[in-house]
Amino acid sequence: MFIVEGEKAVSELLLHENWKIHHIYALEDWLNENQVPGNVPSEKVSVKELKRISSLTTPNNVLAIVKIPEWKISEINSAGDLTLMLDNIQDPGNLGTIIRTADWFGIENIICSESTAEVFNPKVIQASMGSFMRVKVVYTSLKTYLESLSEQIPVMGAVLHGKNIYTTEIPDKGILITGNESQGISNDLENMITHKISIPLFHKKEKNQLPESLNAAIATGIIISHLRKNYS
Amino acid sequence: MFIVEGEKAVSELLLHENWKIHHIYALEDWLNENQVPGNVPSEKVSVKELKRISSLTTPNNVLAIVKIPEWKISEINSAGDLTLMLDNIQDPGNLGTIIRTADWFGIENIICSESTAEVFNPKVIQASMGSFMRVKVVYTSLKTYLESLSEQIPVMGAVLHGKNIYTTEIPDKGILITGNESQGISNDLENMITHKISIPLFHKKEKNQLPESLNAAIATGIIISHLRKNYS
Repeated sequence: MFIVEGEKAVSELLLHENWKIHHIYALEDWLNENQVPGNVPSEKVSVKELKRISSLTTPNNVLAIVKIPEWKISEINSAGDLTLMLDNIQDPGNLGTIIRTADWFGIENIICSESTAEVFNPKVIQASMGSFMRVKVVYTSLKTYLESLSEQIPVMGAVLHGKNIYTTEIPDKGILITGNESQGISNDLENMITHKISIPLFHKKEKNQLPESLNAAIATGIIISHLRKNYS
Repeated sequence: MFIVEGEKAVSELLLHENWKIHHIYALEDWLNENQVPGNVPSEKVSVKELKRISSLTTPNNVLAIVKIPEWKISEINSAGDLTLMLDNIQDPGNLGTIIRTADWFGIENIICSESTAEVFNPKVIQASMGSFMRVKVVYTSLKTYLESLSEQIPVMGAVLHGKNIYTTEIPDKGILITGNESQGISNDLENMITHKISIPLFHKKEKNQLPESLNAAIATGIIISHLRKNYS
């Protein structure tokens, strides 16, 4: 089970038949204003009680306990579209933001290394702003997955000293790998990248100190936006 | 005063003459391996003591108390380059990430509404990954500032139903406004935008539920990247 909080997310959950809500805890007002299906148990709680079960500092009227779906790596078809691959993303906020960004740009699948943060962590769910309902997130050994692909598909990855994304022709379908916040993409995986790319640093010569990197979610967002721009 | 934590950030601070360090608290090893200028008081602390004064769950060897600089809005010249304007950004992580992104793309100035999160909040400093040292962040009334500009400069802002950034000619110099995480750009300011822009949603018709927005830092990163791509 995992927790979904807030009016917007819970209302949307109720519209999705494939998510099984185990229990809803809500303030009286929310229960009066919303239609909970007969097969979903719901319970009235006080503001104080909601605050005690919530992971938010200011809980938002309703909290749902939801069954974790069983997503399988075998359901993911990474050929023919753009699929995101996350190699050891540690920060729950980054993971949630990446899911939200993927959703915006119509990416339906994210394949994570087993070391990546857990998608059903409340902080990830919160940062995804409901997008966890529309993007499938599965966990597997990334190396084994890439080796098992029967088709040759482009594997893009942001690395230090890769080719400038703005001036290089890059396939807009295939797998895009985002690496860990401080270590980047692991060596094993880096060897499997067919297109090493970089977001160039805007260099001002007069400065002696330069930034070292972009935030992992920001870099992912910039690259996805760049790969999707021809479809808008 | 404000707090800067971690080996990388403090080492870099020591290289910047314009930042006044009031006091350094560090583990013995750090003090042995680093040269602290004679005019900066430093003190040896134990791991336990550092943990007590740190805002991090795993403190990183050294913590500096630093004087807050007096940046003035009059020092900002927003003509001739790209300047960022933040209208009521509330999340410290978002603000820090935006500062880091601005630094990567060579943006030197960020003008914030008085309601925007405080740049010297430890969470902002942490998320900026040292970029707070290279980007000037000032607070003022944005409306008054824009009204006071003697030159006509482009004012860009991401709004709902603005022009598609990928297919529209947008000036790459001027002011770029990012709005609040949930309310967007305030009405007062929206009226002063000369170029209303949007990052288009990648629309898949078969879905009945669609994402509503991008994270504010992600949207800012994507737009800045787009405006800077010709300079790389």
